[in-house]
Amino acid sequence: MTTPTPKAVLVIGAGDATGGAIARRFAREGYIACVTRRSADKLAPLVAQIEAEGGKAHAFGSDARKEEEMVALVQKIEAEIAPIEAAVFNIGANVRFPITETTARVYFKVWEMACFGGFLMGREVAKAMLPRGRGSIIFTGATASLRGRDGYAAFAGAKAALRALAQSMARELGPKGIHVAHPVIDGAIDTEFIRTTFPERYALKDQQGIVDPESIAEAYWQLHQQPRNAWTHELELRPWLEAW
Amino acid sequence: MTTPTPKAVLVIGAGDATGGAIARRFAREGYIACVTRRSADKLAPLVAQIEAEGGKAHAFGSDARKEEEMVALVQKIEAEIAPIEAAVFNIGANVRFPITETTARVYFKVWEMACFGGFLMGREVAKAMLPRGRGSIIFTGATASLRGRDGYAAFAGAKAALRALAQSMARELGPKGIHVAHPVIDGAIDTEFIRTTFPERYALKDQQGIVDPESIAEAYWQLHQQPRNAWTHELELRPWLEAW
Amino acid sequence: MTTPTPKAVLVIGAGDATGGAIARRFAREGYIACVTRRSADKLAPLVAQIEAEGGKAHAFGSDARKEEEMVALVQKIEAEIAPIEAAVFNIGANVRFPITETTARVYFKVWEMACFGGFLMGREVAKAMLPRGRGSIIFTGATASLRGRDGYAAFAGAKAALRALAQSMARELGPKGIHVAHPVIDGAIDTEFIRTTFPERYALKDQQGIVDPESIAEAYWQLHQQPRNAWTHELELRPWLEAW
Amino acid sequence: MTTPTPKAVLVIGAGDATGGAIARRFAREGYIACVTRRSADKLAPLVAQIEAEGGKAHAFGSDARKEEEMVALVQKIEAEIAPIEAAVFNIGANVRFPITETTARVYFKVWEMACFGGFLMGREVAKAMLPRGRGSIIFTGATASLRGRDGYAAFAGAKAALRALAQSMARELGPKGIHVAHPVIDGAIDTEFIRTTFPERYALKDQQGIVDPESIAEAYWQLHQQPRNAWTHELELRPWLEAW
Repeated sequence: MTTPTPKAVLVIGAGDATGGAIARRFAREGYIACVTRRSADKLAPLVAQIEAEGGKAHAFGSDARKEEEMVALVQKIEAEIAPIEAAVFNIGANVRFPITETTARVYFKVWEMACFGGFLMGREVAKAMLPRGRGSIIFTGATASLRGRDGYAAFAGAKAALRALAQSMARELGPKGIHVAHPVIDGAIDTEFIRTTFPERYALKDQQGIVDPESIAEAYWQLHQQPRNAWTHELELRPWLEAW
Repeated sequence: MTTPTPKAVLVIGAGDATGGAIARRFAREGYIACVTRRSADKLAPLVAQIEAEGGKAHAFGSDARKEEEMVALVQKIEAEIAPIEAAVFNIGANVRFPITETTARVYFKVWEMACFGGFLMGREVAKAMLPRGRGSIIFTGATASLRGRDGYAAFAGAKAALRALAQSMARELGPKGIHVAHPVIDGAIDTEFIRTTFPERYALKDQQGIVDPESIAEAYWQLHQQPRNAWTHELELRPWLEAW
Repeated sequence: MTTPTPKAVLVIGAGDATGGAIARRFAREGYIACVTRRSADKLAPLVAQIEAEGGKAHAFGSDARKEEEMVALVQKIEAEIAPIEAAVFNIGANVRFPITETTARVYFKVWEMACFGGFLMGREVAKAMLPRGRGSIIFTGATASLRGRDGYAAFAGAKAALRALAQSMARELGPKGIHVAHPVIDGAIDTEFIRTTFPERYALKDQQGIVDPESIAEAYWQLHQQPRNAWTHELELRPWLEAW
Repeated sequence: MTTPTPKAVLVIGAGDATGGAIARRFAREGYIACVTRRSADKLAPLVAQIEAEGGKAHAFGSDARKEEEMVALVQKIEAEIAPIEAAVFNIGANVRFPITETTARVYFKVWEMACFGGFLMGREVAKAMLPRGRGSIIFTGATASLRGRDGYAAFAGAKAALRALAQSMARELGPKGIHVAHPVIDGAIDTEFIRTTFPERYALKDQQGIVDPESIAEAYWQLHQQPRNAWTHELELRPWLEAW
């Protein structure tokens, strides 16, 4: 009897319900979950939960915007844990300001968090996956990825740039065996942020009117499972009650 | 011990590999496959295959372009077989002509087959599903659904209209519990047509360079399984080697 | 001194304010306006207005959905009046019905009027223009051309198909010198229909909140004037107050 | 007899043929052309040309990526020259690298030049225009604004973000009287860069196969002239021979 080859899933931005659900979903299939956020301490409950469910997990404190940290992170996982077979970039930065009140600092920071970190992850993970000729790279998109809106110059800009990154990488890396996907979450997600900030929205939860992070995790797992004769690059995940 | 409630899947246009694979996929999950093409006789092998795999199937000779036939078909299945829980419109009509050589007859026929039949199916199935507040309606799309191309005025027109139908129905029926989806197959499918017409294309099969109908079937099944807090309306299925 | 070569503009669907404004705009530049609607009688005021402004116009009673009528119309203009240098398809068919109340007759009629007639015009005019290697063909689009909406399965389907026709023709005929364009009017137009049906909308006219047919005519004229090193295929025309 | 109120057009990135042509086009209509590039010296020929054509122009050495420089530039023009009635952001940064060879520095620099500068211009000009309730802000787009491509992660990201900025601003500022537009140049432009780098492409010039900067300038002028009942936000400018 042989031991299966270990495989890692990297989830950048595992501090919210979505990143956590994705990590747990892959861990249930035997993947070693490598989860990051700026402070590793706060990931302890997620690691404990994965382990309690019989999985394996490693928490990393890592700033996704820092090139040297991302390079080191990917190298460390590849060298010491397992090959990264799937990587998910899950950092958002949803802010809303009138254009005249959008500071240069906010405009830059939103791009740095929601897009530049994705570029760093995508590039470093691609370097590791290319020699193996396989792997999935998934960038979490939002409605703002598809179009700008009043007050969303910064956020829509960062998300549109992340989408262009995903498309460019998909076209370049697809024929080299790497599956790059860009799911678009079009609706409020069941998170603490929505619960406290938009209580009337959150009340739709009872009717399945907001997105369950477990549903996102399932969709990401299915993307990773697709055979290479039928890959999906973009799909939306939207609650049935959502207007669009 | 109770018997599970019977459920039907309707596949309009089950004459090719794709429609057949979809019917078999749902039949494996216990759905009674109701498959149609213009001549029921030619469906006998598919029905036999489903039954050999332990499933149930009914073949119907039905012209999807005839309103009275579609009305009767849906009523018959609902009355005599089982509630239609999922319906798939899978008729294409891929033709290519320079615009000046596109006859009015061709232009009309392509629309009638690839779009009007979809309207009839969608409307009739929606009538049956609405009182139950659930069900999936899936329209098979193609690259031409998204944009016109030199020589494809008729085909792209029909597919674009089918896509507009799917979007309109999704927006209207989603909040009533009906999941309308429009998967876009962007690549050659492993069919007899491609094997004989485009042999050099078909040769990519060994490298998974053309779409396996089983992959399409799996994607359609997953769409039907999505919880209503996270529905997908559109996604592409594209071989890894496909240029896009 | 030489007489300038006569040129014709064909406007299919000149029964509303938009078609009339387009015909008058081109007539002011010396084009012979050939205007059609089902009944030529109703075009008399338009012809009189063009002539009063110093232009030339011919009215044709012609059903755009009838192949033989379209063929005869284009041949007659080319043989007896002047080469068609610009042609505009301007027939809409804006209806709204829930999908379950959309009759097959309505679904077909809307497509026949808003799309099939456009195909016939486009094909016949292309035949006339191709030997000359120049000319403009313009199809009037609407918001529904771009996406489906609750209640608009028929209208959005027809407009999406017309857009696919325009794209396909642009890609095929552009490199042969024919400029195919698809302007999208995104907003209410200042017409009798809007005035009587949506009076609150019409009240925005004082603030330029609805589209002036003269603005559409000007945009169409500019499209026809574009040098072939910089052609526009699609652009929207939208009032400043319009939400989008 | 009264003197007409002076009006300024601001062209950020007037170092190439396109920016220069735009400045000259507006200057011919009496606008005072305020043109910028990093080094004002190199703008002397453009200023001389505008003056020789009877217009007025001011050259500014200004780094569009520096917030304080952009703020000062707009304030200076508004205080000392004339109200900015139209502003054009015309800086590109077309580079191509495989994703694994795209340095963080390149990825950032391309965004900073092609997008961040546009944000700064858009915001500062909007502040000046809002109290007047009028003005045009135009961001030059490219094919890469619409989709990512193999090798274009950095460029497509920056252009997509600029497009999202333009859309967000259009939706926010349109109902306040400011016309925000995003023309997409889809083809090679007749510039020194194309002449020396892609000579075979440049050879298409004789057949009008590459975009003439004067055509772009004309289109921008027409955008600025549109009445507010029919504004265009996006349009492409594409040579007739261009494949798309």
